[in-house]
Amino acid sequence: MLEKRTPIRINQAVEKIMEHFIQGRTEEVSISECDQRFLGADILATNDVPLFTRSAFDGYALRAVDTVNASSNQPIELRIVEELGAGMVAAKEIGPFEATRIMTGTMVPKGCDAIIMLEAVKEVEKNGERYIVIKRKVNEGDHISFQGEEAKKGEVILKKGTKINPGVMAVLATFGYSKVRVAVKPKIGIFVTGSELLDVDEPLQEGKIRNSNSFMIASQIRRAGGEAVYFGKLPDVLDTCTNAVDAALKDVDMLITTGGVSVGDYDLMPEVYKELSGEVLFNKVAMRPGSVTTVAVLEGKFLFGLSGNPSASYVGFELFTRPVIRKMLFCENLHLREEVAQLNVDFPRANPLTRFVRSKMYFENGKLLVEPAGIDKSNVVMSLAHTDSLAVLPGRERGFQKGDQIQILLFDDEGGSFPWN
Amino acid sequence: MLEKRTPIRINQAVEKIMEHFIQGRTEEVSISECDQRFLGADILATNDVPLFTRSAFDGYALRAVDTVNASSNQPIELRIVEELGAGMVAAKEIGPFEATRIMTGTMVPKGCDAIIMLEAVKEVEKNGERYIVIKRKVNEGDHISFQGEEAKKGEVILKKGTKINPGVMAVLATFGYSKVRVAVKPKIGIFVTGSELLDVDEPLQEGKIRNSNSFMIASQIRRAGGEAVYFGKLPDVLDTCTNAVDAALKDVDMLITTGGVSVGDYDLMPEVYKELSGEVLFNKVAMRPGSVTTVAVLEGKFLFGLSGNPSASYVGFELFTRPVIRKMLFCENLHLREEVAQLNVDFPRANPLTRFVRSKMYFENGKLLVEPAGIDKSNVVMSLAHTDSLAVLPGRERGFQKGDQIQILLFDDEGGSFPWN
Repeated sequence: MLEKRTPIRINQAVEKIMEHFIQGRTEEVSISECDQRFLGADILATNDVPLFTRSAFDGYALRAVDTVNASSNQPIELRIVEELGAGMVAAKEIGPFEATRIMTGTMVPKGCDAIIMLEAVKEVEKNGERYIVIKRKVNEGDHISFQGEEAKKGEVILKKGTKINPGVMAVLATFGYSKVRVAVKPKIGIFVTGSELLDVDEPLQEGKIRNSNSFMIASQIRRAGGEAVYFGKLPDVLDTCTNAVDAALKDVDMLITTGGVSVGDYDLMPEVYKELSGEVLFNKVAMRPGSVTTVAVLEGKFLFGLSGNPSASYVGFELFTRPVIRKMLFCENLHLREEVAQLNVDFPRANPLTRFVRSKMYFENGKLLVEPAGIDKSNVVMSLAHTDSLAVLPGRERGFQKGDQIQILLFDDEGGSFPWN
Repeated sequence: MLEKRTPIRINQAVEKIMEHFIQGRTEEVSISECDQRFLGADILATNDVPLFTRSAFDGYALRAVDTVNASSNQPIELRIVEELGAGMVAAKEIGPFEATRIMTGTMVPKGCDAIIMLEAVKEVEKNGERYIVIKRKVNEGDHISFQGEEAKKGEVILKKGTKINPGVMAVLATFGYSKVRVAVKPKIGIFVTGSELLDVDEPLQEGKIRNSNSFMIASQIRRAGGEAVYFGKLPDVLDTCTNAVDAALKDVDMLITTGGVSVGDYDLMPEVYKELSGEVLFNKVAMRPGSVTTVAVLEGKFLFGLSGNPSASYVGFELFTRPVIRKMLFCENLHLREEVAQLNVDFPRANPLTRFVRSKMYFENGKLLVEPAGIDKSNVVMSLAHTDSLAVLPGRERGFQKGDQIQILLFDDEGGSFPWN
């Protein structure tokens, strides 16, 4: 069945996907098991930080009011009433013209409202008592870290959807999160199609290529934060194929197929969608590569029919599948992050369609530059190994030149918002 | 035992570490298990790419020599001797003034040395035979993808030490690597020290803090490509402590301890090194934070005595431990990658020592900017959650200003070479 397809714009395609309701789930895991996962709940400060009002420096705790008239000409003297070591708690409240020797991190005694640093005063002894001599006004609050000034108990310190990294681990441990609520990893099934596909351990035969898409996409799924389940090669028989898709869909949150979506291919996937009464959101997108991408919803779950071409399925995954995974992980920025970079090669050929060029970015004196990955070798698969971004070349009537400022899309975890085109 | 310590320069410290012989190991794993690991051997093309000389476009295969005199005024005609569908192999060799209809990807027939695109010619029929009419000279090699032009069988296409990503997976599968030789993950043990440390599930007590370092460092180890083994809190008793370190060292490739390295602390670790006849490479580095870092070699293995301060141990790990892990993973660039960025805040205070400020980088119109992570909140641990780089502020007699170009160190997998300071 050959059908005429009307391509939709890229942002329309993304919008159609994102409009569809999809909900992540959460689970609680041990802090030792949560690394690299995404927070499934806001993390609250379980105590004030600092826990108590403390001195930020070695010095003397005092009452600022006692120092208002202090100057070089008119130094004032405060009597030292107590000396606190690290971790000690003051026994005495401070009265007028009194001070307490205090260490960094020590709790500030009652009555005082400022610290003067050790090196800013001179200590003298008179009649068996110790005094400090102060020659300048000290301001209220000087060198005091007030209880809760960095975080108040109950305050959100890390947002749901944050990816857990070494620093986040430190925060979780500091606040006593021995169990951590994380997003359940979305489970994404993969089928490949195509009679030309050999298994990775099969010897090469004329006219055939080894299946590389399933391994590549599984790795993209993991990079996005999901769990990949490879279901194998779809058979060429419609019934068997429909049953396989139907059965697999029950086990996963979404399904990816590669190949079998082109007009003129053995049009397997469109028939399967029909058989399963799937709603096809779109089956052609005005972009290169990957224009034949089809996205359907079957039984409330997404089915991404990506191209069989590795480059096209790579791009299709990052543009269309990744944001759905990131939504199920509660991320704030669901899409690829967009930045501006300077193109470092010519792209003289004009193209009416927006192109996504697998690229490698780098810096020159703090300036972001980009060029196609594996520029000397045109092989699609080999260049993918060095791809860390997609250069976006909007469709227009002339090509692009070295030095042009263009948009690039990054695969990093920070992500970005949409639309970027 | 209080000792006087002489700080060494940062690059001296790194050099002392890197001079020490250390060797990674490799193992073979299934391609399905190799994602995110590091290649333990060069990956060679197992066949020529392209596998055979093929047409890059739909068109006609011909002999360039037949077209040398072709022009609009003097078009030449070539007789079509064969028509090849996708995947078909030519039965006929091409002779003078003959051509073969050919598809993209089809093997080029013997005798021909150029392709002319379908749209560049007109087909005519004469006496029951088909001819193409050519009005311009075709150059030898036009639109032909020659066997092995992208990669020759046996050529290194991915280097040992490359981190495996989605594109690398595609390459491995394409070339039939069902088993992949990867670097064994270095096993790194962690001990924490300090009587003030509570376990993550203990309620907070005055003067105590929860152990966050072990979780943070375990995550840093995994980010660097290693495997973390947490051995718990070291006891305060020297003998027990020495035995624990000695026993743990047998199970791991290197050991990290946090805390217990400061002069004035209960100086546990220096005593342990002595007991075990360890060679102390250095015990003080001219840097902030982390000046009290000690690195020793015990029984041929590294022992990293990092500071108990989270910020200092974070930095110490990235500067000193990470490159050793990366060496055992056969990476080309062992160290943090250095880039230039524009500082977006003032650091008015001068400091004689080089500072590493936990930072967050971002772009503005393709320009790299950096500012301290968690700039509004000074808490060390909370700011670590948002740290994606270290700003390097070299020691000097004046501070730094917003707008200054400074060096930053990135944690990404690309890595960089040394010295960067």
